[in-house]
Amino acid sequence: MKPAVVSSAATREETDGRPLPPGWRSYTSPEGLRYYVNSSSKETTWRRPSSSAEAPQRPLARQSSSPYANGSNSSAKTSQPTETADVSLRKPATYKQPPGSVSPAKRQIKEVKETKITINCVTFPLPGEGPEQQLLKPNEWSYCDYFWTDKKDPQGTTSLPGFEVLLQKQLKGKQMQKEMAEFIHERIKIEEEYAKNLSKLSLSPLAAQEEGTLGEAWTQLKKSLHDEAEVHLKFSNKLHSEVEKPLLTFRGDNFKKDLKKYDHHIADLRKQLASRYASVEKARKALADRQKDLEVKTQQLEIKLSNKTEEDIKKARRKSTQAGDDLMRCVDLYNQTQSKWFEEMVTTSMELEKLEVERIEWIQQHLRQYTTLRHETDMFNQSTVEPVDQLLQNVDPAKDRELWVKENKTGDVRPVDMDI
Amino acid sequence: MKPAVVSSAATREETDGRPLPPGWRSYTSPEGLRYYVNSSSKETTWRRPSSSAEAPQRPLARQSSSPYANGSNSSAKTSQPTETADVSLRKPATYKQPPGSVSPAKRQIKEVKETKITINCVTFPLPGEGPEQQLLKPNEWSYCDYFWTDKKDPQGTTSLPGFEVLLQKQLKGKQMQKEMAEFIHERIKIEEEYAKNLSKLSLSPLAAQEEGTLGEAWTQLKKSLHDEAEVHLKFSNKLHSEVEKPLLTFRGDNFKKDLKKYDHHIADLRKQLASRYASVEKARKALADRQKDLEVKTQQLEIKLSNKTEEDIKKARRKSTQAGDDLMRCVDLYNQTQSKWFEEMVTTSMELEKLEVERIEWIQQHLRQYTTLRHETDMFNQSTVEPVDQLLQNVDPAKDRELWVKENKTGDVRPVDMDI
Repeated sequence: MKPAVVSSAATREETDGRPLPPGWRSYTSPEGLRYYVNSSSKETTWRRPSSSAEAPQRPLARQSSSPYANGSNSSAKTSQPTETADVSLRKPATYKQPPGSVSPAKRQIKEVKETKITINCVTFPLPGEGPEQQLLKPNEWSYCDYFWTDKKDPQGTTSLPGFEVLLQKQLKGKQMQKEMAEFIHERIKIEEEYAKNLSKLSLSPLAAQEEGTLGEAWTQLKKSLHDEAEVHLKFSNKLHSEVEKPLLTFRGDNFKKDLKKYDHHIADLRKQLASRYASVEKARKALADRQKDLEVKTQQLEIKLSNKTEEDIKKARRKSTQAGDDLMRCVDLYNQTQSKWFEEMVTTSMELEKLEVERIEWIQQHLRQYTTLRHETDMFNQSTVEPVDQLLQNVDPAKDRELWVKENKTGDVRPVDMDI
Repeated sequence: MKPAVVSSAATREETDGRPLPPGWRSYTSPEGLRYYVNSSSKETTWRRPSSSAEAPQRPLARQSSSPYANGSNSSAKTSQPTETADVSLRKPATYKQPPGSVSPAKRQIKEVKETKITINCVTFPLPGEGPEQQLLKPNEWSYCDYFWTDKKDPQGTTSLPGFEVLLQKQLKGKQMQKEMAEFIHERIKIEEEYAKNLSKLSLSPLAAQEEGTLGEAWTQLKKSLHDEAEVHLKFSNKLHSEVEKPLLTFRGDNFKKDLKKYDHHIADLRKQLASRYASVEKARKALADRQKDLEVKTQQLEIKLSNKTEEDIKKARRKSTQAGDDLMRCVDLYNQTQSKWFEEMVTTSMELEKLEVERIEWIQQHLRQYTTLRHETDMFNQSTVEPVDQLLQNVDPAKDRELWVKENKTGDVRPVDMDI
């Protein structure tokens, strides 16, 4: 699904009946957007000029200053420290620049300089417009800073919300962890088989009849295989309890459920945002229609083409003002929803980040346990050969001969000559 | 086969016509053995008394002083240093003690005190008779001192020459050595299989997609299994070339041939000894017959029971003397053969002893090689984990996040409020 890039040049409705400052007149662009032209200074702007600085600065919609703001929406997440942080960190919307000094009637659509862009119902500033955004967590490469846009695949046929990318990372991490446990399990099986074979060989009767000090050394050498087997068995047992099991049970089935919950939460907010965006579009169109109607009626009255009464004009102006109020309410609702989504994105991606750090540290800790166990195994293994070495040191052919002769001698009296 | 224990009381023949010292007379025992009685001193002895110290000391038969000694028999083994040694070390035959002061006519056979005993044609001194034999190699438990008699099995039904016991020891040693090589071979197979399994596992794709520093550590951990496999493969290869092969090829087929040669040599000498012994027995019987004949004739002449002439007596005495000479010759030949067998026994058993020392030292040396290789293996094994440890030390969740974010981020521009 290709992201619908909708250029939405925001408009400013006639909020009241106050006249424009001297020299200014208002027009509507071919797209139905109102703009203002100063015929003496040749100035053109999308913003309704006010005569002085006394014009009120419109507060950010999401800060609930709008009369249409749903006051009960102050979310349940106020306890999250990031929530308050991100509100202040969120970059204020920059007001759009004047479309330029050329006559709006001659301006091409592509020349209209848009300062914001809505991608999949999310509103972003255009690059180069307004002050640079500072990262929420500079130098930290925090997830909360880098996954605001959707991700297109190389073919551009599908797109994936940034949050999905984060979720997939978590799922992949969980899978890696499971595969590591599997790997360790295979290692355990190898160790067990090795131990079994060594142990079996150590019981072999081969050369069991060797005697004396050499026989003792040989017996110990055979026994050392059993000791080695024990070492490897211990290694495999500890691998199981101290590496495989922790890797396997760390974040069990609940983990996927938790991720699903996060996923649904964010996805629901995105759906809501889409619906709010549709309302804004609809209200914007209604306002344009009303403004056009008012404009036509006013011009007809001025050039006496119709017998419209002041009453008719007033009615049309009222309707236009109502449509303007409706748009403002829709935009406020949209901004509220986007703000909520924003907060959830920051909160949840930082939670995912924390989970990922935990995962890496957990795995690091247990792979270290693996190397420690391997080290131990080598140490223990060495100790199995030590007694063999000792006994081999003591092998003494003379002593063995003595032992054997004592047991097997047939007679030490030598023959003598026979007498006649 | 029960050893034939033949009591052979040696006799002393009339070597010449010289008269006995005054007071002495010679008699023949019921077994046909001659003894001497001093009627005034009541002394009785098996040895022909001589009137003074001028009587020649009879040399040991085996020293070729006998005129009947086969001079061509000076064996081919004169180069053996032990031969000259053992000749002097061989205990001289002790001459038998006088049978006692009782009248020989009244003496019972069992009262005759034998000082030598012939077991399977080999002549030994009886315990307690004559001076104690000193060991040829005291404090060494040398084979040459302890295998002179035959060995009876516990049931007493069979007997085995002492030399056979030594040979069997050698053959058993060879078998032990072969079995040790077999054991090592089994160990090699276990190591090879272990290495194969480790190597295979190291190539497993499990968790291969883990990224960043953790991914590096994991990759190294997997690789370390391959390194471990190499270590065990090297161990098994060295076990083969430095332990199994030397154990297997040390004293190949020639060894058994050599042992057979020793066996035949000694066995031939024993056969010869048996035949010499039979000759002695026969000659001894012939002499006894001759002496009896002479005795009868002499008595008949003394008591005038027959008209024997001095000539007849002289003839009988000559025949008796010839039979005595014949016996002396046979005993000399017997003693020569026994001496030769003695020399061979000493030489060969010392050779076997040397072989046994070599075998033990060879095995000791190569089993030590085994423990050295085992030790090396543990050392090398430890080194395979070191790079894993290093990389695990360097695992850094923040760095991994940075790497991953750089590659996977979808957009760092945060959404802003929509304008109206």
